[in-house]
Amino acid sequence: MNSKTVRSLDEIIKNNLDSEQLKEYNRIHYGRKDHSELKLQDSTIKAGEKYGFEVAGFSFNAAKEVRTPKIVKVGLIQHSIVLPTNEPIDKQKNAIFDKVEKLIETAASEGVQILCLQEAWYMPFFLCTREKEDWAEFAELAENGPSFQFLSKLAKKFSMVIISPILENDNGVWWNTAVVIDENGNYMGKHRKNHLPSVGSFSETFYYLPGNTGHPVFETKYAKIAVNICYGRHHALNWLMFGLNGAEIVFNPAATISEFGESFWGIEARNAAIANSYYTCSLNRVGTEDFTTKLNQNITRSYYGSSYITAPNGFRTPGLSRDKDGLLIVAMDLNLCRQVKDHWGFNMTARLDQYAKELKEALTLGK
Amino acid sequence: MNSKTVRSLDEIIKNNLDSEQLKEYNRIHYGRKDHSELKLQDSTIKAGEKYGFEVAGFSFNAAKEVRTPKIVKVGLIQHSIVLPTNEPIDKQKNAIFDKVEKLIETAASEGVQILCLQEAWYMPFFLCTREKEDWAEFAELAENGPSFQFLSKLAKKFSMVIISPILENDNGVWWNTAVVIDENGNYMGKHRKNHLPSVGSFSETFYYLPGNTGHPVFETKYAKIAVNICYGRHHALNWLMFGLNGAEIVFNPAATISEFGESFWGIEARNAAIANSYYTCSLNRVGTEDFTTKLNQNITRSYYGSSYITAPNGFRTPGLSRDKDGLLIVAMDLNLCRQVKDHWGFNMTARLDQYAKELKEALTLGK
Repeated sequence: MNSKTVRSLDEIIKNNLDSEQLKEYNRIHYGRKDHSELKLQDSTIKAGEKYGFEVAGFSFNAAKEVRTPKIVKVGLIQHSIVLPTNEPIDKQKNAIFDKVEKLIETAASEGVQILCLQEAWYMPFFLCTREKEDWAEFAELAENGPSFQFLSKLAKKFSMVIISPILENDNGVWWNTAVVIDENGNYMGKHRKNHLPSVGSFSETFYYLPGNTGHPVFETKYAKIAVNICYGRHHALNWLMFGLNGAEIVFNPAATISEFGESFWGIEARNAAIANSYYTCSLNRVGTEDFTTKLNQNITRSYYGSSYITAPNGFRTPGLSRDKDGLLIVAMDLNLCRQVKDHWGFNMTARLDQYAKELKEALTLGK
Repeated sequence: MNSKTVRSLDEIIKNNLDSEQLKEYNRIHYGRKDHSELKLQDSTIKAGEKYGFEVAGFSFNAAKEVRTPKIVKVGLIQHSIVLPTNEPIDKQKNAIFDKVEKLIETAASEGVQILCLQEAWYMPFFLCTREKEDWAEFAELAENGPSFQFLSKLAKKFSMVIISPILENDNGVWWNTAVVIDENGNYMGKHRKNHLPSVGSFSETFYYLPGNTGHPVFETKYAKIAVNICYGRHHALNWLMFGLNGAEIVFNPAATISEFGESFWGIEARNAAIANSYYTCSLNRVGTEDFTTKLNQNITRSYYGSSYITAPNGFRTPGLSRDKDGLLIVAMDLNLCRQVKDHWGFNMTARLDQYAKELKEALTLGK
């Protein structure tokens, strides 16, 4: 894998097809002939140039109907770490805080109302080292840790709901947790990652337990939102329960490398949006992270970004780049959720009673 | 929608990217840098030219391991109707039989062991007319109707398992049914479509009931197979139950038009293959079908083909064309199913007991 080879498939496509082919490609692949790009402010473009991040904006509209449009502006931030992983932990963390603050300020200037950060956003994803104690300072109180304090101020300042995926330390028990901060900067609740990978060196069960918070949907000022953390995207029932509980937008903050299924990064969250008639927001970190373990083992992990958003009708945005910090902004009409349900009828035809029964039988038989 | 505009996205991509870009596109989109094309016989190419169908062949291999490779050759046939829809029904049917026979003979000459035909393969998809009685001759006995008799001979002759999706008439009750014929030409069993669309003019509940056969897996001589008919692909639990019941390959014969989600044709069955660590085979008809109803309403439906196959690791083949009859042949190693389960652990991490409980609670609350 060479993450430098291409910036994104979307870019290859855009640069190589003629306009007629591109229209057809867009229609068949993304779901629509043009991407409904949002016009961004000059100051946003300049901020991106100054601080070295990409910005892209799109909109998803609903049909006119009796309800007034319910448009919410969502922002996703993908970013790399800043300092080497052997620097003091508070330094590493503060350097990321400084970088992310610029991105959040830019999002705020574009009117973003709900913002999501990537999985374990303020640290290198050290879980591939299988070492624990030395990294413990990265594990925080969900309700009042350093990252909460940092983001709470920004949430309040910008009247922004912020989803902050952290490494949680709850009285010595670690969890992979997403904290939801409301538009007044208050702690609103948390969700703990339901499904944990034991794939290659990502042996997360070494660090924490599968989540015990079920499938909460947070009724924020702007939308009903839920968080499906990283590996949970592989599990259809995880997505389903958030939908049954009323989510309009489900965020999937992740930390995932090319060797582990880059070819289906565009598949799973998009499939979930379609199956459950809600918006999904896919968010992955970028950059290369190097570790040296106590046994002098060198571990390198490169993340491929490619964050994107899918509408309930299956239409999707292009992805952010595979290798650069970025801010993706999407103005989405939440009325589309019910419109799609009324059109496709997936909820009506789901036969869930039948499946609850079959599933129970399968488990009873030990299948 | 103009189904003539492009033959397939795969073709656009192949023709417009340079070789380096194409490798990266293939790796990120399809999952591998080259498609592992099967070499087809000259006679196969000639048959395609003579009878006007496309043939494509690919292989999916597994890693070497203690078990010997368990390679099975699967064939999918996509085709248009032959005669106008106002011709006598037996004539229409026989004309399709004649066409499909050529395709099956070609598949047999390439060593295909399991063959699947498209949904309601021997008829125009008249269900968009919302008229019933005049079409009744298309509804057959599953166990011994004309299409069974026709295919049974070929199955026996070529030692081929054939999946035949039909319109079933069981004592005056219609069903949308897939019949499985074993390699000796015997009736092996049937599966009735579990989820029925009421989308636009496709109001299938007007004709038949949701299936009452659960999620059978057929232990054929060559592989454990199941059939998820058309609209059932939108339902994650439908796919899941076939997997829990042991399927190694799940076929999705469909009849679907561009307006109804062509942009996610490549998403859902592929997602199901990944989520359940089995092969999925996506099969859609081609061609335009014109109807004139008794009220002199003209109805036209164009199908977009694009049949493709996904491996349990998420890798996929290119699709057949959007507008031409075609035969897709894939040699697949079934050992890959368990290898992927051992690697990804989706089954191990599924927490199905938790979901059986949550699902039951959600239903109890009437959510």
